[in-house]
Amino acid sequence: MEALDIILKKRNGLELTKEELTFFINGYVDGSVKDYQMSAFLMATYFEGMTDDEATNLALIMEHSGDVIDLSNIKGFKVDKHSTGGVGDKTSLVLAPLVASLGVKFAKMSGRGLGHTGGTLDKLESIPGFNISLSKEEFVKQVNDINIAIIGQTGSVCPADKKMYALRDVTGTVDSIPLIASSIMSKKLAAGADAICLDVKVGSGAFMKTAPDALKLANLMVSIGKKANKKMTAILTNMDEPLGKAIGNSLEVKEAIATLNGDGPKDLEDLCLTLGSYLVLDSGKAESLKEARQMLEEQIKNKQGLKTLAKMVEAQGGNSDYIYHPELFLNAKEIIEVKAKDSGYISRIDSYKMGHASMLLGAGRENLDTVIDPVVGIVLNKKVDDFVNIGDTLAYIHTNGKNTKEAIDLFYDSISYSDKKREVKLILDVVR
Amino acid sequence: MEALDIILKKRNGLELTKEELTFFINGYVDGSVKDYQMSAFLMATYFEGMTDDEATNLALIMEHSGDVIDLSNIKGFKVDKHSTGGVGDKTSLVLAPLVASLGVKFAKMSGRGLGHTGGTLDKLESIPGFNISLSKEEFVKQVNDINIAIIGQTGSVCPADKKMYALRDVTGTVDSIPLIASSIMSKKLAAGADAICLDVKVGSGAFMKTAPDALKLANLMVSIGKKANKKMTAILTNMDEPLGKAIGNSLEVKEAIATLNGDGPKDLEDLCLTLGSYLVLDSGKAESLKEARQMLEEQIKNKQGLKTLAKMVEAQGGNSDYIYHPELFLNAKEIIEVKAKDSGYISRIDSYKMGHASMLLGAGRENLDTVIDPVVGIVLNKKVDDFVNIGDTLAYIHTNGKNTKEAIDLFYDSISYSDKKREVKLILDVVR
Repeated sequence: MEALDIILKKRNGLELTKEELTFFINGYVDGSVKDYQMSAFLMATYFEGMTDDEATNLALIMEHSGDVIDLSNIKGFKVDKHSTGGVGDKTSLVLAPLVASLGVKFAKMSGRGLGHTGGTLDKLESIPGFNISLSKEEFVKQVNDINIAIIGQTGSVCPADKKMYALRDVTGTVDSIPLIASSIMSKKLAAGADAICLDVKVGSGAFMKTAPDALKLANLMVSIGKKANKKMTAILTNMDEPLGKAIGNSLEVKEAIATLNGDGPKDLEDLCLTLGSYLVLDSGKAESLKEARQMLEEQIKNKQGLKTLAKMVEAQGGNSDYIYHPELFLNAKEIIEVKAKDSGYISRIDSYKMGHASMLLGAGRENLDTVIDPVVGIVLNKKVDDFVNIGDTLAYIHTNGKNTKEAIDLFYDSISYSDKKREVKLILDVVR
Repeated sequence: MEALDIILKKRNGLELTKEELTFFINGYVDGSVKDYQMSAFLMATYFEGMTDDEATNLALIMEHSGDVIDLSNIKGFKVDKHSTGGVGDKTSLVLAPLVASLGVKFAKMSGRGLGHTGGTLDKLESIPGFNISLSKEEFVKQVNDINIAIIGQTGSVCPADKKMYALRDVTGTVDSIPLIASSIMSKKLAAGADAICLDVKVGSGAFMKTAPDALKLANLMVSIGKKANKKMTAILTNMDEPLGKAIGNSLEVKEAIATLNGDGPKDLEDLCLTLGSYLVLDSGKAESLKEARQMLEEQIKNKQGLKTLAKMVEAQGGNSDYIYHPELFLNAKEIIEVKAKDSGYISRIDSYKMGHASMLLGAGRENLDTVIDPVVGIVLNKKVDDFVNIGDTLAYIHTNGKNTKEAIDLFYDSISYSDKKREVKLILDVVR
């Protein structure tokens, strides 16, 4: 078998066998297939796509290119969740404790990655003392004890995906649906859960700009997971505005706590209950989706979700006082009210720009060396379809003085107005 | 400017500016643009193509990536010729002396390259003593003195093309029309002639498998040359059989000598007269194509073409006795008659297989370390549209014992028969 023949076969639109993909991917990890051959292959894949079988095989090969996490020592039904990356997306911080409080095992490994806004790990680290680096033994023990742990991905998971992703980033081959699907699914499969739910974002700030593309991606990921005997759900959600109102690390933790107290933004609560319902249904703890949702709603009312978050924080070395008393979180030096210069219904809050504004303030990483400021960010006072008059408060900018003016300019730039309501829907579709 | 943005622009089907291409190509030569980025770019170009302006700019940028040969010290009109690579193609050995014998300056630099059969340089080196390595000064002086020189390309011509071609070879990006066109034209432009004629082969053994593709390539190369103020001709020729009858280095030199004596195969003579007519017309030595052809025919009759070849051989250190007495060339140890096992009209002699058979005997290079055997090869006794009976001699295999059986098997495999004549045409089209 020759690397060149595999590139040519893909370029000519023919389907690659599992043996051919294995040869090519494993060769890339061990260095016998060169960077320049992989990048030609990736570009050919961008143009020619992959069949579902090819994408499934690619995900499985990448899964087995490194450590596969053995969760067999965790008793009970194990679930996991992944989002393709949203601005203001603190879903995991609400969903995981809620679901775990019902006895479903939520064993989640998060990648840190580069992004406009901090990831789940950065948000958790804004809680003083919180430790994301558990050993595998500690991870398994904690999930057995309290049903929940969220830790950083170890370096030895999916090395093929890691190496390919780094190459895609510099060769213009990131936005290929089969490559995105197999990359995400390789990591999710390696993490060993029984059921996986996926939140596929659609809109300007997302990988997938249009609903048809997002649906293709969702269908492909669900298909890959099912072929690997996982219970799968993918939900398409609108990114025409940030999720919830808070953007920025400790600001988002506070919003997650409010949501677990029954006092969160409606869009965030709805998404967490929807995703959670499918996981609870898959776990067998509920007979129907409706029952699963009612069970989760009850875990908000009786504060069991909040308590489970506090338990996790304590188990991972954090100070759980912050969960019960979020007013303990430090504030930024200055909180600036941003006022509307126009009137009308808000028709769009560009997530990409909003994420970038938040990054400028210090809430996200410009490069891997950036140290994140946990307290800065933006809290929206208005969302899409709200009517505003000139002078109404649109948002509060929490700043320690870094790039404040640029962030405010970008904030204004991200807002669009309209004469009438758009009646925006958050959840666009569900694929099972 | 960023390499990634240029890859993305090409991938998204947008036209690159000259500045962008310059940044990318020069960056590749100096190492700031990486192999893996160039290969992604090449694969994107394979799929998205290039506009004529892009291909022209690419050729000009590659031309100026290294030494450009200054032929201004050669007095008179300078011409050059290139073939996209044919089996049994000894055209240059006939065409160059014929044209030069009329006072047109033929200053040709040949690449050696890897190929089934030896290139022009290998053929010339089968003449004892012939030296292909002249200094630039010697090259210019010889063309001024006797109107003709054929030498090896210096390493410092078109380094960008050299580096890109090596990468295309291992990344499945060879057969892209704009990349082929700009690669060929960069070297031709760097070589500095006033008029260039191109022989674009069509058929199984050629880069271009179909006439429409070959026409696209021809049109693009002519367009690039004209934009660089060259007089351009491209001729599309059939490769459904080898050119002439001899395949193998000294065998081909002998056939070229026979052609200059008026005793060559008709297809080879016709091609040389056709290509030559356009060059003589462009040089201003003739008023019409018809007149140019008559002048060249006269140079065969009066042996001035042959004498010019002998002069070149002598000027470049070779023994010109071999030109006047080709029986001096050594023969292979064994000459095997290959007889027809079928009867009918020959409908096709697969050039690719025939070239491969010849390579197996030792006439071509399997890899860069192969030492060529100058005397081995194949001499056809029948050509396409000849009628043969079982037992008729199809060809003579000249062998020194290397792979003889495999070569004969492949020879048989290359011949197809038909009930009726195909009336094959050698010259399919002319682009000016």
